[in-house]
Amino acid sequence: MINNIEERIEKVKQRLENNLFFDFLKIEITEANANKLTGRIPFKDDILNPYKTVHGGVLYSLADSVAGSLAIIQGNLVTTTTGSLNYLEPAWKTEYIYCTATLERDGKHLVSTTVKIYGDDGQVFDNGNFTFFKSTIEL
Amino acid sequence: MINNIEERIEKVKQRLENNLFFDFLKIEITEANANKLTGRIPFKDDILNPYKTVHGGVLYSLADSVAGSLAIIQGNLVTTTTGSLNYLEPAWKTEYIYCTATLERDGKHLVSTTVKIYGDDGQVFDNGNFTFFKSTIEL
Amino acid sequence: MINNIEERIEKVKQRLENNLFFDFLKIEITEANANKLTGRIPFKDDILNPYKTVHGGVLYSLADSVAGSLAIIQGNLVTTTTGSLNYLEPAWKTEYIYCTATLERDGKHLVSTTVKIYGDDGQVFDNGNFTFFKSTIEL
Amino acid sequence: MINNIEERIEKVKQRLENNLFFDFLKIEITEANANKLTGRIPFKDDILNPYKTVHGGVLYSLADSVAGSLAIIQGNLVTTTTGSLNYLEPAWKTEYIYCTATLERDGKHLVSTTVKIYGDDGQVFDNGNFTFFKSTIEL
Repeated sequence: MINNIEERIEKVKQRLENNLFFDFLKIEITEANANKLTGRIPFKDDILNPYKTVHGGVLYSLADSVAGSLAIIQGNLVTTTTGSLNYLEPAWKTEYIYCTATLERDGKHLVSTTVKIYGDDGQVFDNGNFTFFKSTIEL
Repeated sequence: MINNIEERIEKVKQRLENNLFFDFLKIEITEANANKLTGRIPFKDDILNPYKTVHGGVLYSLADSVAGSLAIIQGNLVTTTTGSLNYLEPAWKTEYIYCTATLERDGKHLVSTTVKIYGDDGQVFDNGNFTFFKSTIEL
Repeated sequence: MINNIEERIEKVKQRLENNLFFDFLKIEITEANANKLTGRIPFKDDILNPYKTVHGGVLYSLADSVAGSLAIIQGNLVTTTTGSLNYLEPAWKTEYIYCTATLERDGKHLVSTTVKIYGDDGQVFDNGNFTFFKSTIEL
Repeated sequence: MINNIEERIEKVKQRLENNLFFDFLKIEITEANANKLTGRIPFKDDILNPYKTVHGGVLYSLADSVAGSLAIIQGNLVTTTTGSLNYLEPAWKTEYIYCTATLERDGKHLVSTTVKIYGDDGQVFDNGNFTFFKSTIEL
């Protein structure tokens, strides 16, 4: 069991609040525990591609940030090693875009996660994987 | 050989100019031919992660947009099927962040590309792959 | 709902039986429905890497074959477009290596799946994604 | 510059010779230096899929082994962290299948490589990325 998980989740929320890019995306964490973390962004004009659906890079930014937050609350600051996203359906016709990251492994050096991105009604837009390298710096 | 490649490159540049997200990133195409396309974004405060290097999602957004532009100038509008990025070095200490996409295959239904992201002095920050599905709609 | 799903599963099992590479791996399907398919291979000497754990390419071959079988029972023959695998734990100390593929999307042209590879006791060794392109040839 | 690179290449060749799975694939290294390593396998009946082209898992096994050999000659034994392969053309109508791995980064903990798989006449079948984690054990 992780000690102080509530405290760590609080710290991660503050990281999201004190950053201009997260400010642009308007990311917020809606649910979190040691094994699963969910965040969301609102659907808005300045994150759309020319087809008027959410840009793939914005979806990836959401996923990387949510999965990274989950990795960090394991205890150490991390950097992304590899990320991949599979696009199943265009992300639109939704008020918010949600991403849930699930912890697959918290190793000595690497943290591995899977992500799902979905809309208000739960329809899945994308899935993917993010792997992080653990620094020695504690959160 | 592709006819009207110059005209297509011009159309793709216009797509980048008429979009709020590309406006936010300040993406511009710096070089393009039928097999290779390079774009860049300026290093700026509102695209950084909490470590003060360019956010992985911004790098991915750049790569997806550059690779997608290369895919589109093959002739048809496309949607991203799968994208992946490997992070080698933090992207910082550079005025611009460049991405060059190379065409690996222009098939009947799928367009496959590889990408490299690098700084002013050519140091490679990331590499990756993007695969696109071709729509039947011409550019 | 898919008609004749039982018949299709039977056909896919026959495909695995009439192939020399599957013969080498000794792949067998242990459970299958329209949305989920599980296969396994026995742990044996000639599939190990120099560290005496199952070679990553063998694990990938298992995953590709199991996910491909799930894709095919949707109705059409397919070819793999992109596959990726994340290695979490070495695959060893198990009599069989299992892989379960889950259908994420059965589109008009693409079939998207996720995979998990695990041992006798359910411990997860690897996870990943496989995307397939649908041919027009029915199974 | 790496000392004793010739010696390390010799050791890696021996690893390939003393392994039953590599024996099955009949992998051999045809060219190697510190930044690039090429291996090949013969086209043969027991590595084909039901379409009579080389099974995607065999191509991946070749790529993982070649890229892993390149990672190891940097100096330390490694394990694969993440591998991905994009399938461009079916691998057939060739006597040998070649894979060239290129070193993208040799970091403190991770080694990153890109791979290309091709036939006798140089036609590219697949491309991909492999990332390895460095153990503390020297080759």
